[in-house]
Amino acid sequence: MGEVLATYLIDGTTNIEKKADSIAVGLTVGSWTNLPSVEQEQLKKHKGRVVNTEILAGKSVITIGYPSLNFTNDIPAILTTVFGKLSLDGKVKLVDLSFSEDLKKVYPGPKVGIEGLRKLLGAYDRPLLMSIFKGVIGRDLSSLKEQMKGQALGGVDIVKDDEILFENELTPLTNRIRVCKEALKESEEETGKRTLYAANITGRTFQLKEQAKRAVDAGADLLLFNVFLYGLDVLQELSEDPDIPLPIMAHPAFSGAMISSADYGLSPSLLLGKLSRMAGADLVLFPSPYGSVEMAKEETIKIARELTAKDLYHRAFPVPSAGIHPGLTPKLYEDFGIDSVINAGGGIHGHPGGAPAGGKAFHQAIDAVMQGQSLKDAAQHSVELRQAIELWGGA
Amino acid sequence: MGEVLATYLIDGTTNIEKKADSIAVGLTVGSWTNLPSVEQEQLKKHKGRVVNTEILAGKSVITIGYPSLNFTNDIPAILTTVFGKLSLDGKVKLVDLSFSEDLKKVYPGPKVGIEGLRKLLGAYDRPLLMSIFKGVIGRDLSSLKEQMKGQALGGVDIVKDDEILFENELTPLTNRIRVCKEALKESEEETGKRTLYAANITGRTFQLKEQAKRAVDAGADLLLFNVFLYGLDVLQELSEDPDIPLPIMAHPAFSGAMISSADYGLSPSLLLGKLSRMAGADLVLFPSPYGSVEMAKEETIKIARELTAKDLYHRAFPVPSAGIHPGLTPKLYEDFGIDSVINAGGGIHGHPGGAPAGGKAFHQAIDAVMQGQSLKDAAQHSVELRQAIELWGGA
Ligand SMILES: [Mg+2]
Ligand SMILES: [Mg+2]
Repeated sequence: MGEVLATYLIDGTTNIEKKADSIAVGLTVGSWTNLPSVEQEQLKKHKGRVVNTEILAGKSVITIGYPSLNFTNDIPAILTTVFGKLSLDGKVKLVDLSFSEDLKKVYPGPKVGIEGLRKLLGAYDRPLLMSIFKGVIGRDLSSLKEQMKGQALGGVDIVKDDEILFENELTPLTNRIRVCKEALKESEEETGKRTLYAANITGRTFQLKEQAKRAVDAGADLLLFNVFLYGLDVLQELSEDPDIPLPIMAHPAFSGAMISSADYGLSPSLLLGKLSRMAGADLVLFPSPYGSVEMAKEETIKIARELTAKDLYHRAFPVPSAGIHPGLTPKLYEDFGIDSVINAGGGIHGHPGGAPAGGKAFHQAIDAVMQGQSLKDAAQHSVELRQAIELWGGA
Repeated sequence: MGEVLATYLIDGTTNIEKKADSIAVGLTVGSWTNLPSVEQEQLKKHKGRVVNTEILAGKSVITIGYPSLNFTNDIPAILTTVFGKLSLDGKVKLVDLSFSEDLKKVYPGPKVGIEGLRKLLGAYDRPLLMSIFKGVIGRDLSSLKEQMKGQALGGVDIVKDDEILFENELTPLTNRIRVCKEALKESEEETGKRTLYAANITGRTFQLKEQAKRAVDAGADLLLFNVFLYGLDVLQELSEDPDIPLPIMAHPAFSGAMISSADYGLSPSLLLGKLSRMAGADLVLFPSPYGSVEMAKEETIKIARELTAKDLYHRAFPVPSAGIHPGLTPKLYEDFGIDSVINAGGGIHGHPGGAPAGGKAFHQAIDAVMQGQSLKDAAQHSVELRQAIELWGGA
């Protein structure tokens, strides 16, 4: 029989066994010790079990096993079971979930994953490079097209919509995809390099599939999706739909409400790592440990590990984001390795030579790192990289 | 033009004006001061505005106005705009949202609300009484029927499913509704008193509507819904569907992940109060300030206020839950008033005389409170209330 193990970090270190028992019973059969033995026999297979209790750095760590007999195998049911009422019960943080194999295999995982995206791009031996539209609210299609072309000319692999760009009169989704793809075609004709476009799927939940299909028909290469405003199950629904064959990029918008506290909510690696991958994200953005929007390095590494560890599913690309400039490339490579996406906004657009020079500077930095060369050395014969380093440092 | 005002509680009190400006600009037009004046003119109507900044108890309180031109009028788009990236940007808590009237009127609000539920029950001059199935996992239909009848015989107005009861072999939704309604019919024939049944709608997101319609057809009186595993927009979708004409009871499962921290996430009154009501909840459960699962009294009062304040929408019933027994009735009435639901689990089932006696004890307490009588006096001629007070205290 299947089981989900849930590991909690709980405030306090006294009565840890009693606390663990009360969770295991309270969130499954409800009561136990006073039941007649015939009822105990009948309910036994439904009862949660205490798998482990330990004390760590002044907190209790408790792992409870929940029989899959108690829930349907979907993320809402599982999270309701293991962290529904419990999320409101004082300082309790859900730090990990572990699914038995029979439960795991029902989840789709990434549609194409790291290998599939590399194949789409023909880029196998380096981290990918991504950039983000900047300041697109209130701009028209021609302005978007110009931005898209500038980013593509610098050789970035993927350009993503701003997550706060919704359906709007100036740049409606299908028109936006059309002009962005025109820009990408022009750029590819000039440079021979392919760039993919991730279009933002937004709005009412029960219209998301139709919208995604319109994006598919209009030629989008990937979908960007603000998963945590809708729930992981909606990500899974989009990912499983055979009529939506595009890879999905999960944006962490709003996830901070659930992962930022040390005492409450979920761990970043569970929400943005394990569960996002299971539910079907091909790439997951999260705050980089270097930028203005900050996340502890240890947490970001754990997210990346969950996305890329060997598992039933395709591996998903970690995309540490915010505050990234070319000078950080060696650090990014050291921390996240080859199977990651280097993602920049200001670090592309803010280059003294414009977005095309920004993209080039990043590629020069990536080439240098892959060849074991220091950025300082590489900058000597790479003007864009030199300019980036002069502006933002890093060599 | 429409606007959403978002109020944040932010750690630190220095540079508060600068922080406010950077939010107002960063989450809308992206940059401002270096733009050519012709572009400033073009983007002006999209730019966020700083409405207010103040310092309160060692924290900054900042209110930003976001032009509705920047987003579609749905909860995912609005929360992405005002608290997408920002939720990950250090200690920032979203404490309130205020919608302009043109935006507000798009949201459904409760389908029947307090007045509609009172009419359904013919109960106008007192708080309602609700009880919860206990320990239903692993139990069969006959056990559920027995529990239902016991609760109904005590005269409770509403019985709700346990939120951790999902679609399952022993008590599948439509069979469960059928036998529960049989029990309610039998009870009504005995007592002349009507009891409503709230059935739990669960599982995959894109099957929720079909499931809800099956519940409607099977005769459910209300729907119970674990809103925060799916998102408020899904609540709105269910509420707006004309083929799902039942009132919806919002369960707070998982909401603790978003509302419990003083530094991060959303305020309880925004998530469980204002937004839940706007999105269509007719009743909202939240932790009572008295029980084992605890929430600060001030917060619970704020939730209730948001649910019942005069507004465009019907008013929704506040349902403070956990740790409620008959002796708390005067306190509940004092804190939440007549327009609230008294909701008990153990306080009904754990009565020495069983669930029917538990329900009677609550009604005796409610009658006493409504007549301005002390529980002590009422207990003298009300045996069930006396037993409850002897067991749990409160007079
Ligand atoms: Mg952005
Ligand atoms: Mg329950």
